[in-house]
Amino acid sequence: MSTAEKPSYKVIGTRPIRHDGVDKVTGRALYGADIKLSRMLYGATVRSPHAHAKIVRIDTSQAELMPGVRAVITSEDVPEQGDRVVELGEGAVNMRHLAANVMAREKVLYKGHVVAAVAADDVHTAEEACARIEVEYETLPPVLDLLKAMSADAPILNDDIRTESIGSAPSGSDQQTNVAKHFMFEKGDIKQGFADADIIVERTFDTAMVHQGYIEPHNATAHWNADDKITVWMSTQGTFSARQQTAELLLMPVSSVKVVPMEIGGGFGGKISVYLTPLAALLSKKTGRPVKILMSRTEVFEATGPTPGSHMRVKLGAKSDGTLVAGEAWIAFEAGAYTGSPIGAACMCVFACYDLPNGQVEGFDVCVNKPRTNAYRAPGSTHVAMATETLVDELCEKLKMDPTEFRIKNAAGEGTRRVDGPVYPRIGMVETVEAIRDSEHYKTTLDGKFCGRGVASGFWFNVGLKSSVSATVNSDGTVALVEGSTDIGGTRTSIAMQLAETLGIAAEDVNPVVVDTDSIGYTDITGGSRVTFSTGIAAINAAISIQEQMCQRAAILWETDAENVRYEEGHLVGPSDQRLSFRELAEKLRELGDAVVGYGTSGSETQGGAFGTHCVDVEIDPELGKVQILRYTIAQDAGTAIHPSYVEGQMQGGVVQGIGWALNEEYWYDEQGEMHNPTFLDYRIPTCYDVPMIDTIIVEVPDPQHPYGVRGVGEVPICPPPAAIANAIYDALGIRMTELPMAPHRVLAAYLGRNTDD
Amino acid sequence: MSTAEKPSYKVIGTRPIRHDGVDKVTGRALYGADIKLSRMLYGATVRSPHAHAKIVRIDTSQAELMPGVRAVITSEDVPEQGDRVVELGEGAVNMRHLAANVMAREKVLYKGHVVAAVAADDVHTAEEACARIEVEYETLPPVLDLLKAMSADAPILNDDIRTESIGSAPSGSDQQTNVAKHFMFEKGDIKQGFADADIIVERTFDTAMVHQGYIEPHNATAHWNADDKITVWMSTQGTFSARQQTAELLLMPVSSVKVVPMEIGGGFGGKISVYLTPLAALLSKKTGRPVKILMSRTEVFEATGPTPGSHMRVKLGAKSDGTLVAGEAWIAFEAGAYTGSPIGAACMCVFACYDLPNGQVEGFDVCVNKPRTNAYRAPGSTHVAMATETLVDELCEKLKMDPTEFRIKNAAGEGTRRVDGPVYPRIGMVETVEAIRDSEHYKTTLDGKFCGRGVASGFWFNVGLKSSVSATVNSDGTVALVEGSTDIGGTRTSIAMQLAETLGIAAEDVNPVVVDTDSIGYTDITGGSRVTFSTGIAAINAAISIQEQMCQRAAILWETDAENVRYEEGHLVGPSDQRLSFRELAEKLRELGDAVVGYGTSGSETQGGAFGTHCVDVEIDPELGKVQILRYTIAQDAGTAIHPSYVEGQMQGGVVQGIGWALNEEYWYDEQGEMHNPTFLDYRIPTCYDVPMIDTIIVEVPDPQHPYGVRGVGEVPICPPPAAIANAIYDALGIRMTELPMAPHRVLAAYLGRNTDD
Repeated sequence: MSTAEKPSYKVIGTRPIRHDGVDKVTGRALYGADIKLSRMLYGATVRSPHAHAKIVRIDTSQAELMPGVRAVITSEDVPEQGDRVVELGEGAVNMRHLAANVMAREKVLYKGHVVAAVAADDVHTAEEACARIEVEYETLPPVLDLLKAMSADAPILNDDIRTESIGSAPSGSDQQTNVAKHFMFEKGDIKQGFADADIIVERTFDTAMVHQGYIEPHNATAHWNADDKITVWMSTQGTFSARQQTAELLLMPVSSVKVVPMEIGGGFGGKISVYLTPLAALLSKKTGRPVKILMSRTEVFEATGPTPGSHMRVKLGAKSDGTLVAGEAWIAFEAGAYTGSPIGAACMCVFACYDLPNGQVEGFDVCVNKPRTNAYRAPGSTHVAMATETLVDELCEKLKMDPTEFRIKNAAGEGTRRVDGPVYPRIGMVETVEAIRDSEHYKTTLDGKFCGRGVASGFWFNVGLKSSVSATVNSDGTVALVEGSTDIGGTRTSIAMQLAETLGIAAEDVNPVVVDTDSIGYTDITGGSRVTFSTGIAAINAAISIQEQMCQRAAILWETDAENVRYEEGHLVGPSDQRLSFRELAEKLRELGDAVVGYGTSGSETQGGAFGTHCVDVEIDPELGKVQILRYTIAQDAGTAIHPSYVEGQMQGGVVQGIGWALNEEYWYDEQGEMHNPTFLDYRIPTCYDVPMIDTIIVEVPDPQHPYGVRGVGEVPICPPPAAIANAIYDALGIRMTELPMAPHRVLAAYLGRNTDD
Repeated sequence: MSTAEKPSYKVIGTRPIRHDGVDKVTGRALYGADIKLSRMLYGATVRSPHAHAKIVRIDTSQAELMPGVRAVITSEDVPEQGDRVVELGEGAVNMRHLAANVMAREKVLYKGHVVAAVAADDVHTAEEACARIEVEYETLPPVLDLLKAMSADAPILNDDIRTESIGSAPSGSDQQTNVAKHFMFEKGDIKQGFADADIIVERTFDTAMVHQGYIEPHNATAHWNADDKITVWMSTQGTFSARQQTAELLLMPVSSVKVVPMEIGGGFGGKISVYLTPLAALLSKKTGRPVKILMSRTEVFEATGPTPGSHMRVKLGAKSDGTLVAGEAWIAFEAGAYTGSPIGAACMCVFACYDLPNGQVEGFDVCVNKPRTNAYRAPGSTHVAMATETLVDELCEKLKMDPTEFRIKNAAGEGTRRVDGPVYPRIGMVETVEAIRDSEHYKTTLDGKFCGRGVASGFWFNVGLKSSVSATVNSDGTVALVEGSTDIGGTRTSIAMQLAETLGIAAEDVNPVVVDTDSIGYTDITGGSRVTFSTGIAAINAAISIQEQMCQRAAILWETDAENVRYEEGHLVGPSDQRLSFRELAEKLRELGDAVVGYGTSGSETQGGAFGTHCVDVEIDPELGKVQILRYTIAQDAGTAIHPSYVEGQMQGGVVQGIGWALNEEYWYDEQGEMHNPTFLDYRIPTCYDVPMIDTIIVEVPDPQHPYGVRGVGEVPICPPPAAIANAIYDALGIRMTELPMAPHRVLAAYLGRNTDD
């Protein structure tokens, strides 16, 4: 761990046992599928076998006749949204599209698109009833290729889409199109920049659609009460977001929906949008009983939000001394059936690691007949890191510069303005490169004929946003901490530790709980690497409020004014050096007035972010094209690592997902738009045989926007691996891979054809 | 409704539909018995058939051999408490006694006393296993009579009890005794007072042990997790009290126990003490699985806390002009097996309605072989009202004064010092008497040979204590209100209305929820007529905090300072007369900084209280002795009635319970201490055939200690009925009834023997 003038913390930086650990290892933790309610019904869905078709007719009569079937719904039961556009926290959302994605109306736009749903006494009856629902389709030609989808003569998926221009993009036309969004960001003079460049590299890249691959499938249980209050139990990355989406889709006030968070078996961005919740609610409304729906793994693959496949053309120019002078990017993302890909973030991230004087980024969000894409861990940034970091490697090669030297020379730093506008506060990009440069791994020579080493960097935002917590002092000196942030990556503990640090008590003496939307103040999603940062600030504010109240109570006890009492390292200190520990005063609170309850909120937006630099060694089987990871080291700026084990776990987990994306994962579609590998047998995520232990170097460049300097760490580790591995493959074989995944057949083909391809 | 200079409220005083109404009428509300958990076991208890015995031996071996039995516990599994005395919110509690009441150790002290408990796969197996547990007892003579129990030669129930002296009582001796407490309160010069009196009346009274008769039996489900965190689901009047009792009994920190409140089917003071919860927890600890235990009705009668039977001698002296000059009371209460009767409150209440210059009150808490008594609606006050109000009636008769005139002349008022010390702030005793005097009922002549009319007054405290609430503004302009006060009598609505009034929004726009002990600040029990008063103050404080935050947010919107924004009647008003409703600003909050969350606590003790005066007409069947209630009017000072329907409901409900106590209810013990009527077939609570519609007059003399003048209203209506009915019986038959219940056989005996008795 690299540190500089690190403050002395008592709790931060230690590794207490996680508060939810026992429930997780004993199987007591309750996930969405574990809910059982009195008189609960089970739901199932009818899904389109076609990627693109008109719905001509749906006959539910045979299903409705089945004993045990309690309700059937189609799009006729889903409220019409008209032209509503609603601010859903993460941006303005076309509600007609969101509703149609939940239940197709008129058209189906991807295989697996829901067209009807059933509630029955048991799941088998529900599934059998689904099989008896007859849907007549008029098939349409599927649009599966990104570039073809952009062409003027492509079949149109959504007849209400016109290209929306963002940034400096030219105004869109009034033509029907599959291009939903057109981004343009510019900085400096791109023409002059390339004119000044001594070396220019340019390549085209393609990445496959990949899935987050969370363990737990989507789930929702809903009860629509007789008073039109709807309670939902589900695993979600954001209870308040799920509440608002559900309420807006049902045309109900947000306060009529209560979302009760269950434990969540992975999200990675894929558990923000609602899919089943409105269906369960509508089935409950029809039956008056709670309805539970679970997805199968195939439904998860075919019909939830993976990250888009992409097509990118990126160009970099540098002076012969290694100074980057210009960068240009053209990026198209598969939106899937409806707009919503992370193309905007991709445009912001593509050159985010570098201090680039002249840049232009153009991005396109393009509808294709695949599931509507969604966030996946640093959404969009992994795609563009594959492009930029491969080209940086190529520049280094041509400049004969060490890749760490080049990155240190050109790294973004405090005051750097990104191409899309924002100016960085203190960031740790350079420090992560230095950490790799100085690592034992990087200093060790790699031998072996088909072995290679690659380096790549990556960036992701910390978004800030709103959080609320409350914290109550118990008479035994412990603190009950109430949060609205659902805990995916250990944030119960990382937030509890910040409260504990501020109060000067032990992490074990804080008991964090995540509660429903009726029981805590508004809290944005667990996403955008924001929770340890922003909910942490809320917890610190609550702790400061508790400090003040404890000083007041001690002042009553010592018959002095509160201003004469100091709070020092978990102790109250009076004007005559009276001294009580937090616990000792807690035990006396009964006689000292109102309960001591601290509350805290946070709501800033931040311009900081997290950077990481990775180094990977690979060995390639020249006959099979299989890439084996020999050694992997990740250096990442955590600002201040609250719980280093969690930070390391996030770093390692991100790398593993990045390795999967780099080498194996992809949606295999046929020409009719059917995915041929929608199971974990055929969609190959890395196993323990595929990855070595990932070595981690936590770099700590405190974020000045957080009292303890925290940076979100959960997302950026997924960004560099594909590029780092591609660079390592180049080092080993002399071939530049530009298509993900770099599966054996592609590596082999590139290696065998290297003289013609490169 | 009588009002004077009443402020103009928009929400207070209206009658919105209760927030929990739909769940209650549709059967969706979840009570303690409705809990089902994965792998849950069912518990049952072995109870003593004897009222007083030593436990010689318990053989659980046959029970443990039964298939399906998972655990058996006896007192050996209950942690030993030693001499611990713990402050449990309602006073210092001898933990050895509390533990022994939950599970008998060495001795059983009443029939129904738990000696063992079983957890099994189903309740039938658990009950059968209980039947196979052999307990060998050595029976001891039961002590059932209050006066005999006080005698020096009485068998001793608890060998560790020595008389505790309270107030000005002489110090107790070091002798073993059944007299656990001796109270003495004095004011003025009692001898001189009676010497100055022209008329003195004195009588002896006896009241029977009676039960609260709540619909829902006691219940507890507990899960002792592998990390030694214990979760409890139960219906209780106080989650934090239940938490502390359970933790202390298990020798665990309070924060290791989480109490989740279920809906509560009546409490009336009887659902404060824990009975089953520690047993369920210990069975869960042994099995690693959740354990649910429910009581039968017989168990509820025999082994939970009824209100004590009493023996009282009270004496009043008045001048011939009707001025009360002296009062003396000697009161003994059945504590039951262990100390804990409301004798202290009885001593404070006995003369609380009157401005008595000279008084002396002596009280005794006496152990007998009956269940440990507990609070029951204005605990202790009904007993003493029976005595005092009967004697006041007798004084009026002798003075030939109208009973309302006498009470108005002598009523306690602002500045009156009670015999036990406290001085009243503004109270409404006189106004309740005036309301009865001026009522159509009182002005109407009652005819009929065996008909009579009686008047009586009563007093009960509002205790204040601690409450915490939080309240979050939703984007649809509603407010989510989180409370720790379990809702027995409609307090979700009465608290929500105070929040709504303060914010100037509709009651329907507040959504109140009652949450578990981990999710809200410390909150004392729902008891002592405190919740609408004290939790209401907390809610008002939360609303004021929301007002301030809303002004800040409006100031951001209007680009001014918060001090330039006014909050007026649910609107934000800016310096240039900009105007936004609460809802309009709520819709804009997303862009205006942190979430708006208001928090409030309260913690004052109060010296106020509630008074009521009742008038009843009865007709008596001279052959059967049966008393029929013809007409009943209650006038009560509610301070300010938040939700008049609830206030009226409390008034009517209290009167009905008072009528039951007056006329029918009692524990029928035989000489061995066996209760012969432990079912609702034989323990006769009033039905709709027994009571007319109770007419209510809400008097409003605002309590200056509450921003809206609220007084707690739930308890005092039970106090006057027995005395009012006794006075009516006297009016009808010329006999003074001095024993409760005034069941037909007693009325008939008194009537037939009236010449000798009176």
